[in-house]
Amino acid sequence: MKAQIGVVGLAVMGQNLALNIARKGYIVAVYNRTSERTKNFVEQRVKGEKIVAAYDLKSFVESLERPRKIILMVKAGSPVDEMIDELLPYLQEGDLLIDAGNSHYEDTNRRLERLSKMGILFLGTGVSGGEYGALHGPSIMPGGTKEAYKLVEEIFLKIAAKTEDGPCCTYVGDYSAGHFVKMVHNGIEYAIMQAIAEVYDIMRKVLGLQPKEIGEIFKKWNEGELSSFLVEITYKIMEKIDEETGKPMVDVILDKAEQKGTGKWTVEAALDLGVPTPSLNLAVVARVLSHFKQQRMELSKLYWQKPIVKADKNLIEYLEKALSLAMFLAYSQGLWLISEASKAFNYGVNLLEILRIWKGGCIIRAKMIDFLREILKENPSNVNLLESQKTVEYLKPRIEPTLKVCQIAREAQIPTPVLNSSLDYLFSMKEANLPANLIQAQRDFFGAHTFERIDKPGIYHIEWQPLE
Amino acid sequence: MKAQIGVVGLAVMGQNLALNIARKGYIVAVYNRTSERTKNFVEQRVKGEKIVAAYDLKSFVESLERPRKIILMVKAGSPVDEMIDELLPYLQEGDLLIDAGNSHYEDTNRRLERLSKMGILFLGTGVSGGEYGALHGPSIMPGGTKEAYKLVEEIFLKIAAKTEDGPCCTYVGDYSAGHFVKMVHNGIEYAIMQAIAEVYDIMRKVLGLQPKEIGEIFKKWNEGELSSFLVEITYKIMEKIDEETGKPMVDVILDKAEQKGTGKWTVEAALDLGVPTPSLNLAVVARVLSHFKQQRMELSKLYWQKPIVKADKNLIEYLEKALSLAMFLAYSQGLWLISEASKAFNYGVNLLEILRIWKGGCIIRAKMIDFLREILKENPSNVNLLESQKTVEYLKPRIEPTLKVCQIAREAQIPTPVLNSSLDYLFSMKEANLPANLIQAQRDFFGAHTFERIDKPGIYHIEWQPLE
Repeated sequence: MKAQIGVVGLAVMGQNLALNIARKGYIVAVYNRTSERTKNFVEQRVKGEKIVAAYDLKSFVESLERPRKIILMVKAGSPVDEMIDELLPYLQEGDLLIDAGNSHYEDTNRRLERLSKMGILFLGTGVSGGEYGALHGPSIMPGGTKEAYKLVEEIFLKIAAKTEDGPCCTYVGDYSAGHFVKMVHNGIEYAIMQAIAEVYDIMRKVLGLQPKEIGEIFKKWNEGELSSFLVEITYKIMEKIDEETGKPMVDVILDKAEQKGTGKWTVEAALDLGVPTPSLNLAVVARVLSHFKQQRMELSKLYWQKPIVKADKNLIEYLEKALSLAMFLAYSQGLWLISEASKAFNYGVNLLEILRIWKGGCIIRAKMIDFLREILKENPSNVNLLESQKTVEYLKPRIEPTLKVCQIAREAQIPTPVLNSSLDYLFSMKEANLPANLIQAQRDFFGAHTFERIDKPGIYHIEWQPLE
Repeated sequence: MKAQIGVVGLAVMGQNLALNIARKGYIVAVYNRTSERTKNFVEQRVKGEKIVAAYDLKSFVESLERPRKIILMVKAGSPVDEMIDELLPYLQEGDLLIDAGNSHYEDTNRRLERLSKMGILFLGTGVSGGEYGALHGPSIMPGGTKEAYKLVEEIFLKIAAKTEDGPCCTYVGDYSAGHFVKMVHNGIEYAIMQAIAEVYDIMRKVLGLQPKEIGEIFKKWNEGELSSFLVEITYKIMEKIDEETGKPMVDVILDKAEQKGTGKWTVEAALDLGVPTPSLNLAVVARVLSHFKQQRMELSKLYWQKPIVKADKNLIEYLEKALSLAMFLAYSQGLWLISEASKAFNYGVNLLEILRIWKGGCIIRAKMIDFLREILKENPSNVNLLESQKTVEYLKPRIEPTLKVCQIAREAQIPTPVLNSSLDYLFSMKEANLPANLIQAQRDFFGAHTFERIDKPGIYHIEWQPLE
């Protein structure tokens, strides 16, 4: 019997996805460039699952029923192109390649175009959920043609995470819609992670709490409106003890945050499309900045000491509210970006469906998403969530606590870039008159770049000072 | 007699540059794609200057002495490539093209490579100073080979702005160094303009001052440590009355800030090179955000009213200190970016020389640059200006006033993204322990992305929870 689907690339995500599919009753062919990894996978992880290991691409492809469905789980970038090139000689018209890595959406467009000329179907597919999600049910964001999606819909719906609103997989949209949406998912993830880190930092430095105590707070929060995967793993992280030293694990980890590109790409896409996403931007910058550990340690000695700040007795409660405000605004910035991209690139994305498939499996799954859906359902064409009375009512009681948190952090000289930019974002978006008129005046003054007027249409330039 | 240099593109910058060169005693050939503009220029603006108008490219090129030196002052992007393509048939080995527009540095690298294969010299040259500077003395930032620079050095030194430290032109460095440095110059410009706009906004909304009164404050500031071109034009803008309505001009201008790309490119380059430039980043976002005027007006009605905040009686003084802190950090972020780029791209940039040529002619010229040079002279290899005792002493008395300004703005719900990000940047850079350890723990938890430890080298991964 032929395998019903193939997986190329057996790093941990590829292994888990293959196992997940096989456990749903499918026969899965697997291939990895280095055959040792394939061997280890089959020997160590495959128990009763119907997994067929191939040690060369030709027999891998030949082991698949037609039209072939092949999931690529290889490193984003040139490895994807190389693997496609290697597979092409064995493929036939109507076969389907599914790039399930974090490819840049422009690469996905390029590959789609190239492959469609050869009659090969292609799905740029975002998969979120990490190792665990890949095995037990990820959120799956496939983009490309609907025809291609139909070929794997059944399998994807079966392996995806499930919620009361159905499996966390939907046809995201045309072209590179799947990878774009996954990219923004990650941009939102960066912002929420940074907001959590800032809140943790205040607990640690202002309140002097130990990881265990911080964990208890996050655990409690996880039962309330902040209930989410990221808050859940935060309390689990706080509980973890380093076996070597007996210290809390989090205290042993170096404060240099890495990144793999999707956050940066989100920022670039937002700038290209003219959508403001300051929380996402500063979350990326915060990771960049954290890298300069050596320099920071030296500067911390060169500069003045941080002042000791007395904690407000309600600080924990304020922190909860501040984090929920920052989370809300991270989602709303990201969703606005997706909706602008959908217009600009003709993706045809249904934001409500995106929120539905983000309810489970993915890293940014959260109780709050139900609330975001409620807002969007009121008026699905209101792609900026700020434009809802529900949002106003939600944010209003969170302003004062967030102001207090930011103020305490400021006094203690603790950086809170994402909390601060959340407030600035909100205050800017609800501000009828920003000082950009002065910027336009300056630009016209020195560069004759022209300006618009408030009282009539048209483009104007004046001579601010004589040229000669 | 042949012309000594040619200018292609007679928009206002090209016209003014041609006049500037001619007034220094050179014979200048000019060409514009639409001959009407050339004709108008010659008839209306050329008085006694030796300017030779050409109406086709062949005679334009032939009117130049060899090796020919041709300044391209055309719109950045494909128009530069098109003009190069049109010129090439008439050029000979050893001729020099100077792209004096705001080209992307990667385009400049590409053009340099292409042209060098043909034996054509090329200088990617940043020119700052706007219309007025082009005519009376800009700051000139040429990059490429030194051989190419030598061909125009004499002319460039003569037309550049002059300060007590010499003409504002220097050989910036190899490859696209000139355009990269000009791009970052503009990135810094964005941040300073936004900081000025935020300070103006607080004067307007918290203190209720009229433009005339605000102008008086900026005028006074321009005599102190904030003395700079951008502060100078700000007070001149505040004094300007709209002839049509009799109102202050700045009040008539629509608050939608435009941009032409260099700010965005700076942010992208900083992310690519891993240099934190949050102030520059948020200045670009602030312009993006200002665009949504209609939406902002609607949201301002939907959301709660801004609270009325009582002004601190020393607010003006605090604002001056806050602006100087933000300006300093904008320069230091930009200079750090240039120095990392110089390393990554082998530009060989001398930061002290860059600061010297930014003293006059350019948009970000400021008294503060002398201070930046002092800091850098102490230790020219300290490319991060934060690493100086002088910086510590400068910033320390500005912290408290900036905190107060940000706090007042916050209470009044006035966005101050660049002021806020300046503080967060400083607090982050002098922070030995950022909460990035939690982010690394989260990444390892859900994605097995590994982490480093504080107590020993190596890359680690732990099983945070059982996979099965």
